[in-house]
Amino acid sequence: MRNTSELRAEILAAARAEFAQHGLAGARVDRIARAAQASKERLYAHFGDKETLFREVLAADAAEFYRSVTLRPDAVDEFVGDIYDLACSRPEHLRMITWAQLEGFALGPPEFDGQPAPDHAIAAIEAAQADGRVDSAWQPGDLIVLLFAIGLAWAQLPHPDAITDDPDVLSHRRAVAVDAAGRLIAARP
Amino acid sequence: MRNTSELRAEILAAARAEFAQHGLAGARVDRIARAAQASKERLYAHFGDKETLFREVLAADAAEFYRSVTLRPDAVDEFVGDIYDLACSRPEHLRMITWAQLEGFALGPPEFDGQPAPDHAIAAIEAAQADGRVDSAWQPGDLIVLLFAIGLAWAQLPHPDAITDDPDVLSHRRAVAVDAAGRLIAARP
Repeated sequence: MRNTSELRAEILAAARAEFAQHGLAGARVDRIARAAQASKERLYAHFGDKETLFREVLAADAAEFYRSVTLRPDAVDEFVGDIYDLACSRPEHLRMITWAQLEGFALGPPEFDGQPAPDHAIAAIEAAQADGRVDSAWQPGDLIVLLFAIGLAWAQLPHPDAITDDPDVLSHRRAVAVDAAGRLIAARP
Repeated sequence: MRNTSELRAEILAAARAEFAQHGLAGARVDRIARAAQASKERLYAHFGDKETLFREVLAADAAEFYRSVTLRPDAVDEFVGDIYDLACSRPEHLRMITWAQLEGFALGPPEFDGQPAPDHAIAAIEAAQADGRVDSAWQPGDLIVLLFAIGLAWAQLPHPDAITDDPDVLSHRRAVAVDAAGRLIAARP
């Protein structure tokens, strides 16, 4: 017999897989219930309606996504490598965030050691600028947007070539992304 | 009385709006039919099922999206500005392409003057490299992926701050994107 927290965890795991694959509109609560070996009635009793469950999954996925990458002043280009690795290893998180964006859900800023993550990232860029590791011409917020874009460039590319399991291609792309970040942050000659 | 091609055009216009907003799973054929002032039966007679209509809209939107931006060897950084402008002026095309990507539809390469667009873009980068305008260290295909990512950086950002009508913010972001492209293509010191 599962206890309540085990049941909730299994429903949530099933919902994360279903929503990542099908989005909010395409997801089916009966498939989630079946995958979690629960009745739809118990699922609704614990999580309310489909949209409420979607919000819960989104919050969990987004928190995990942003918690997995940390901008360090001494390795700003490697931040892009971390984002790239994350998009490769957990594509379902990026899918979930993208579905949510299309459906019009706003993501609040994730926390990082009690600070909102954007503040933490901006402070890291400012520290790197103070050290001369990042061109001081950048507004930190602009650079952070671009670092995410570069790290996610292949993951967000709507082209069949973007999908590959070839380890050489994957590591080449990672190196390209990190190199691109290095070019961005360098002082212009 | 509308003729057949007028009716088809109105259904297609209504479908483009509906799919861009709601995606494939969330779109409702009865809303499309109502917006086009057609019966569902006539819609199905002309376009088959909802997925066939989605594919037709996707092909039209993707062709228009890629046709609107041209990579010229003498203005590689401005290509990013064009992509940025397009994402601002026609957000529904990027939404459509993103829904399609999540739903697993493969986009074929768009044509450009009879050449597939990627070939055309790669030839432009190679010409720019031959002229010394783009660092010859780049593999052209890698650079093109990054140029798209930078041009779409704000459009693809899953954060409420990304959405703005403020013309100063919009033109600042455009300048940042073009500057970033300039940094990428410059030879490393």
